[in-house]
Amino acid sequence: MMEKRNPLPVQEAVAKIMEQPMEGRTEWTALEDAGGCVLAQDIQADHDVPPFDRSPYDGFAIRARDTTEASREHPVPLHVIDDIGAGTVFGGTVDKGQAVRIMTGAPIPGGCDAVVMLELAHEYEEEDHQYVEVKRPFQKHDNISFQGEDTEQGTTVIQRGTLIHPGVTAVLASFGYGQVPTVQRPRIGVIATGSELLPITAPLEPGKIRNSNAYMIMAQIEQAGGEAVSFGTVADDFEKTFSTVKEALRSVDILLTTGGVSVGDYDHIPDILKELGATVHFNKVGMRPGSVTTAATLGSQLIYGLSGNPSACYVGFELFVRPVIRKILGFAAPHLKKRKAVLGTDFPKPNPFMRFVRAELKEENGGWKAYPAGLDKSSSVTSLSDASALIALPGGTRGYEKGMEVDVLLLHSMEGSEWPWDNIVRSYRS
Amino acid sequence: MMEKRNPLPVQEAVAKIMEQPMEGRTEWTALEDAGGCVLAQDIQADHDVPPFDRSPYDGFAIRARDTTEASREHPVPLHVIDDIGAGTVFGGTVDKGQAVRIMTGAPIPGGCDAVVMLELAHEYEEEDHQYVEVKRPFQKHDNISFQGEDTEQGTTVIQRGTLIHPGVTAVLASFGYGQVPTVQRPRIGVIATGSELLPITAPLEPGKIRNSNAYMIMAQIEQAGGEAVSFGTVADDFEKTFSTVKEALRSVDILLTTGGVSVGDYDHIPDILKELGATVHFNKVGMRPGSVTTAATLGSQLIYGLSGNPSACYVGFELFVRPVIRKILGFAAPHLKKRKAVLGTDFPKPNPFMRFVRAELKEENGGWKAYPAGLDKSSSVTSLSDASALIALPGGTRGYEKGMEVDVLLLHSMEGSEWPWDNIVRSYRS
Repeated sequence: MMEKRNPLPVQEAVAKIMEQPMEGRTEWTALEDAGGCVLAQDIQADHDVPPFDRSPYDGFAIRARDTTEASREHPVPLHVIDDIGAGTVFGGTVDKGQAVRIMTGAPIPGGCDAVVMLELAHEYEEEDHQYVEVKRPFQKHDNISFQGEDTEQGTTVIQRGTLIHPGVTAVLASFGYGQVPTVQRPRIGVIATGSELLPITAPLEPGKIRNSNAYMIMAQIEQAGGEAVSFGTVADDFEKTFSTVKEALRSVDILLTTGGVSVGDYDHIPDILKELGATVHFNKVGMRPGSVTTAATLGSQLIYGLSGNPSACYVGFELFVRPVIRKILGFAAPHLKKRKAVLGTDFPKPNPFMRFVRAELKEENGGWKAYPAGLDKSSSVTSLSDASALIALPGGTRGYEKGMEVDVLLLHSMEGSEWPWDNIVRSYRS
Repeated sequence: MMEKRNPLPVQEAVAKIMEQPMEGRTEWTALEDAGGCVLAQDIQADHDVPPFDRSPYDGFAIRARDTTEASREHPVPLHVIDDIGAGTVFGGTVDKGQAVRIMTGAPIPGGCDAVVMLELAHEYEEEDHQYVEVKRPFQKHDNISFQGEDTEQGTTVIQRGTLIHPGVTAVLASFGYGQVPTVQRPRIGVIATGSELLPITAPLEPGKIRNSNAYMIMAQIEQAGGEAVSFGTVADDFEKTFSTVKEALRSVDILLTTGGVSVGDYDHIPDILKELGATVHFNKVGMRPGSVTTAATLGSQLIYGLSGNPSACYVGFELFVRPVIRKILGFAAPHLKKRKAVLGTDFPKPNPFMRFVRAELKEENGGWKAYPAGLDKSSSVTSLSDASALIALPGGTRGYEKGMEVDVLLLHSMEGSEWPWDNIVRSYRS
């Protein structure tokens, strides 16, 4: 009846999942909708930046050699022959003793080779002509932004795999990308299983709990960058669960089930995976909470059985599902960001499994201190709202003391880690 | 003709803006759409958690006093009188010598006061009856999750002003919040001004530039948590600009213009603010880039004139607009997150104004090092895509050297600062 389960160390379980070939698809997205997406291709400059020699200031375009003799006592007057705004072009050529009033960003008129800032210039009118006085000598190329000095045409300006934040949007817009090659968000299906589940707005009944996990996982999927697709709730019934799983697998890249997957007999996921002919990579992990996490592949699709306990489900997602979504999206650092922190409390009880303690990180005296968030029980849901990190406590025969340095994994950071496990495991073995 | 402008120190300009009374409105959002919103009210537990005494494990509910004499050599057999799954309830009372097979999360049957984990129990059948052997004494309350031990009904479990991340979603779901009180995103209008602006997909023309700023600001607004509303591009024409500004002010909380606002004569924003009767708080700030940033109020609305230079516009938004949006949303730390970092390069040239250098932060030897991203010119757009922080270099008579500790402001962090300016200003004065 009950299948024997051998726990796999966390890092080996993560490695097994990350070995599976999963690749993102490219789609074109309107620039205004591309924020938060990931670039699927390198972006090249379609023109020099600046595209022409231009003025970095409002002022007067001049010929530097006209100002060689200029001084405060003997300012050189120049005849202002035109006044061009941004977006307009001076068509002619500026001759000896002449200048052109020019706006920031305007092209340098023919014949000119320097710009006098407006604030440093004295303008005056004489017999219906405009003049400007220059009070010091200028060098050729003073105050000119040269064509291509920022970026030359054809240069790769942004790498594929880059998250499209506002600075990236600016660069894409300036290079004419009205449509952007982005990595399509992988479709992640969610099935909540369990006869004990109530709709979240239903009043509580004895023996029942509200189906908070489905909402939580959908939010985790979106935060990781996936597209969450709900396939509803099914009672603990093999046939119904099986047909829902089959239906979901018709349209998703990854399927998550939550609930069940304990060692109890009402859990049909193991039988369903067998019936589907899926390859089970692990069905138990040496960690708390979340030891009863299952992962399997069926062709190119990944299927997870996450625990029904909210915190165990949460941690299982962050460790095993999030990095796969981030890998598909093309992130070089798909795992949760790791940081060192100092324990704010004792964990006297040793545990053979690696523990992940939901924690609040506080900046104290320039360093980070980690305190458990709420009650650290796998059944506790309120600690999830306060937690900004998971303290990773490697398993072993000793507990941990307040003041010890430990590794924490950040839950809400836009940064990530390439592979956070090596050092954590090393301290485990020491 | 040209208005005299006195630069205001950065921190005073930010303070002026933050003094303006701006408040968020509450709206109700479906939980599945509330991710990334901010809670407008405190959230109370609508029930005890757990809602009843329940089992934290799969196993057998027993009466502890039946096991007083149990030992490995003399296991105590208990008669298993029922088998209840999650979501079902045992209606009767368990008597002396009896046990009930129970699932994780199921209510503790009447009469029972402890749970034996499934893994530690030996089951057998005898004459059509199920039995379980217990091999050690159990104490009253062993392995029971008590009603309310996680959270008592009526407790405030999440504070208003909290960002709704997946852990918060889980708590909201478990307390029955299908609709969530969220702070309505403020509506931020954007008008790009300038005759030099081309649509971003148009080929470049001499003297013209693509309108990248509008796309960039819209993305910055969304990243900060506002709702971006575009009012298009207008040429440098007073009447057209004025009527577009008037139209936008009919429906937005904050209006941003970009372009113009230089010291040149084609900028109509100062005249428009005068015509509207707006109170101008500043029109020049002691900073580079972005010195030509204007901020004004008209009744309860804020109007900004941001520079037309991409990087100056970007910095102006992050310093002066972002914190207002975050304040309206209810964040206690509305400003960019400040962190210490070590300069990775020299900045030999002194500047009387505070400089904000777009920078890449790199973790080196456990510390943060800040390197300029691309060319740090206010006209440079490509440096924006690489920058993850702004190095804040207080103005003064000396430059800065590689290896010095400086303050940096993080551009893509979900964290914030309450008021980042005091220490930066202190170093400015020293």
